[in-house]
Amino acid sequence: MGKNLTSRSDDYSKWYNELVVQADLAENSAVRGCMVIKPYGYAIWEKMQAELDRMFKETGHQNAYFPLLVPKSLFEAEEKNAEGFAKECAVVTHYRLQNDPDNPGKLRVDPNAKLEEELVVRPTSEAIIWNTYKGWIQSYRDLPLLINQWANVVRWEMRTRLFLRTAEFLWQEGHTAHATKKEALVEAEQMNDIYADFAENFMAIPVIKGLKTESERFAGAEETYCIEALMQDGKALQAGTSHFLGQNFAKAFDVKFTTKEGKQEYVWATSWGVSTRLMGALIMTHSDDQGLVLPPNLAPNQVVIVPIFMTQEQLEAISEVVNDIIKELRAVGVSVKFDSRDTLRPGAKFAQHELQGVPLRIAIGARDLENGTVELARRDTLSKETTSINGIADKVKNLLEEIQKSLHNKATNYRNTHITEVNSFDEFKEVLNTKGGFLSAHWDGTPETEDKIKELTKASIRCIPMNAKVEEGRCVLTGENSNKRVLFAKAY
Amino acid sequence: MGKNLTSRSDDYSKWYNELVVQADLAENSAVRGCMVIKPYGYAIWEKMQAELDRMFKETGHQNAYFPLLVPKSLFEAEEKNAEGFAKECAVVTHYRLQNDPDNPGKLRVDPNAKLEEELVVRPTSEAIIWNTYKGWIQSYRDLPLLINQWANVVRWEMRTRLFLRTAEFLWQEGHTAHATKKEALVEAEQMNDIYADFAENFMAIPVIKGLKTESERFAGAEETYCIEALMQDGKALQAGTSHFLGQNFAKAFDVKFTTKEGKQEYVWATSWGVSTRLMGALIMTHSDDQGLVLPPNLAPNQVVIVPIFMTQEQLEAISEVVNDIIKELRAVGVSVKFDSRDTLRPGAKFAQHELQGVPLRIAIGARDLENGTVELARRDTLSKETTSINGIADKVKNLLEEIQKSLHNKATNYRNTHITEVNSFDEFKEVLNTKGGFLSAHWDGTPETEDKIKELTKASIRCIPMNAKVEEGRCVLTGENSNKRVLFAKAY
Repeated sequence: MGKNLTSRSDDYSKWYNELVVQADLAENSAVRGCMVIKPYGYAIWEKMQAELDRMFKETGHQNAYFPLLVPKSLFEAEEKNAEGFAKECAVVTHYRLQNDPDNPGKLRVDPNAKLEEELVVRPTSEAIIWNTYKGWIQSYRDLPLLINQWANVVRWEMRTRLFLRTAEFLWQEGHTAHATKKEALVEAEQMNDIYADFAENFMAIPVIKGLKTESERFAGAEETYCIEALMQDGKALQAGTSHFLGQNFAKAFDVKFTTKEGKQEYVWATSWGVSTRLMGALIMTHSDDQGLVLPPNLAPNQVVIVPIFMTQEQLEAISEVVNDIIKELRAVGVSVKFDSRDTLRPGAKFAQHELQGVPLRIAIGARDLENGTVELARRDTLSKETTSINGIADKVKNLLEEIQKSLHNKATNYRNTHITEVNSFDEFKEVLNTKGGFLSAHWDGTPETEDKIKELTKASIRCIPMNAKVEEGRCVLTGENSNKRVLFAKAY
Repeated sequence: MGKNLTSRSDDYSKWYNELVVQADLAENSAVRGCMVIKPYGYAIWEKMQAELDRMFKETGHQNAYFPLLVPKSLFEAEEKNAEGFAKECAVVTHYRLQNDPDNPGKLRVDPNAKLEEELVVRPTSEAIIWNTYKGWIQSYRDLPLLINQWANVVRWEMRTRLFLRTAEFLWQEGHTAHATKKEALVEAEQMNDIYADFAENFMAIPVIKGLKTESERFAGAEETYCIEALMQDGKALQAGTSHFLGQNFAKAFDVKFTTKEGKQEYVWATSWGVSTRLMGALIMTHSDDQGLVLPPNLAPNQVVIVPIFMTQEQLEAISEVVNDIIKELRAVGVSVKFDSRDTLRPGAKFAQHELQGVPLRIAIGARDLENGTVELARRDTLSKETTSINGIADKVKNLLEEIQKSLHNKATNYRNTHITEVNSFDEFKEVLNTKGGFLSAHWDGTPETEDKIKELTKASIRCIPMNAKVEEGRCVLTGENSNKRVLFAKAY
């Protein structure tokens, strides 16, 4: 606490890293690329989990749990998926340690405990799950199978950043099986819609729903739906993906079902996931130079009350009033914390709660007691007002709703003003380097052009928006024909 | 479905395995010793999680998340702990796969991607957590640190059984740090009390609270508190443990704090955990030859409603009444499922819900409609009654409470009649081999005698009960003096 954050305009990346650590969200661990999610950060993640879990269950999905370790022979069964993840797999080769005869007190891998077949620490669970589904699906009556898993996964990334890209991360992965292609497509799109709904209405993060290009698709998918958000520095962040997997996994694991008509057919699949990466999106959508800004829906404490006192007597008098306020607030469903610590001055407490993004702060001192008032401070606008204790609960509840909406509006406004239509490659580069954000541009539809643009500008196609208008145009790079604009951006 | 279970008297172990699979709780996976927890089993686990999580938070604990992978050098720092787990560690040695040049389409471990330092898949997290706490604890103001983690762990067990002993399992592990020995001891005992409260009052499983003997303690602990339950076959099951770790981990990871008086002292620690093993305890405490019996607190569906109909018209008339019943039940907080599938006959549905332990079944047919009645069947007693639809919600709610209590009473009664005081080694062996259960016996307090008894009888000391009376006695094996009885049993 206490140290000022680097400002966003000075160094956005440094600001982000400092904020994550100083706001007590997460820190790097002793394990290369793996993070420790600290209690405050984890409490925010729990709120995301609870809401997503509710949304999944409401749409008929059930949770289950599949093994962490995947035998190599299963992992390699779906070739594209295997190829896509092979380079970042942590591999278990032994199942025992033993005393190291050369180093007393130290351990070494027991050479006699080598596994016959290596086990991959799951980077994603399609392989182990589809191998299991083979035993669960025989008939059309077993379909659809709508399952989700909350789990940790490991992808050995070389360059890591807290929440955004870590070797181990937490996520949910849905894996569904369907009788028809159409049903699977509907499911994949539905889950992407749920992610968008969650991002917009729960996290106050505006997102664009779209399809990935072939080269940006999930390894093993035939179509990848995604939601793309825009961070304050003008870079895009992929916040969730939902894949239509066709019959690729059903074929790799021989999962067939008997149709109503008695025929044997391969099953159609989807998978979809969001991860602790959402924490990064949250931070880089709303926060400011003072620290984290939390939408009330995600705040572990929506309100913090700080007493201003000189004597123990004053604290007691204040506490009495505060206890009533707390009761009232809880009665209307507001979470509130009374910060009565005597080891910190009010100013230091204010700074801490600002840094940690508590949406509303109530300060109450001796004079407030006399006047029947409190000072109410909004984290998002940093504005303060003095208000009557009478009717405080309704006032706070309404303010929290207003803050939730206001954050969404502000972020949407920023995002909307950072989607720029560009019609030439010069314009493309100019806007990318000055303004950033999404570039809405025509593209000739070939992976070669996509690669070339990425090579020249570091901007990739984030998505082909679901609502893209059909219009005549010419590719910004090649001048070839194009019938809709896609969104380019530099991305996390 | 449909196959009868092996009866418990024929083969208890076979009955257990069949029940777990047929009731759709879990199954073995393609990974040696690892299970798949199926949606129905996972829904029960989620209920346990939610209640435990509530109890932990109510007592001031916060959740966090620490890395899955532990560098070998950290793992070996606390020697006793390392020694205790070394033989069952899955070890990650490489971070990449590559195409196998000798087998097109297959992958192999990339020999160039060997880690400099091997990573242990956590069998428990003391090492990585205490290495982290070193950075979090400087002053007495940072204490106590009360943290819990929900996670998966891997212990490479050679003989595995669904839920009871699996290579990977899900659990929670609490890790706390305190300024004084006394406070840490209070915490360790408090958490054991919470486990006991949870087992008795939420799971309806009677448990005995006690201390482990030195040889049964957690590796690295100075004292292990435990709760011990008794299964229907007379074998004990350790359902939860809470460890006082002294300053062992603080010393191994050099975690000191500045006291109020300005001195540097090592921190005192506890850790405590329960796991998916509780699912095994649940099954083997309450279930019968018809299948699972669930206490209402743990039932994903507390009530299932089965319509008895011949025609579509009848189903519609029944559904109308059922929808009202469902509304009433939900209004009083009862979870209910309407099983209107037309692919199964009522008898088959009854069998399935019995197998899956749904506490109450309501059947309703055409004649019931005329009479304004339903048939209400209790899973625990298998008794049925016809009852009026009028007032059904209250009736069901009361019945569910009665079932919850009744299961606890029944299990407590069984457990109490299976604690037998024995005063000679002949009696010990006789009771163990005929009646089973807990043997309350004097023991001379030495590990040698404990080992000898285990070797001769396969019974181990399950615990030294917290409420053991001080009384003069002689060790059942050696005749040496003893001042209290301990509990022996064969155990899972």
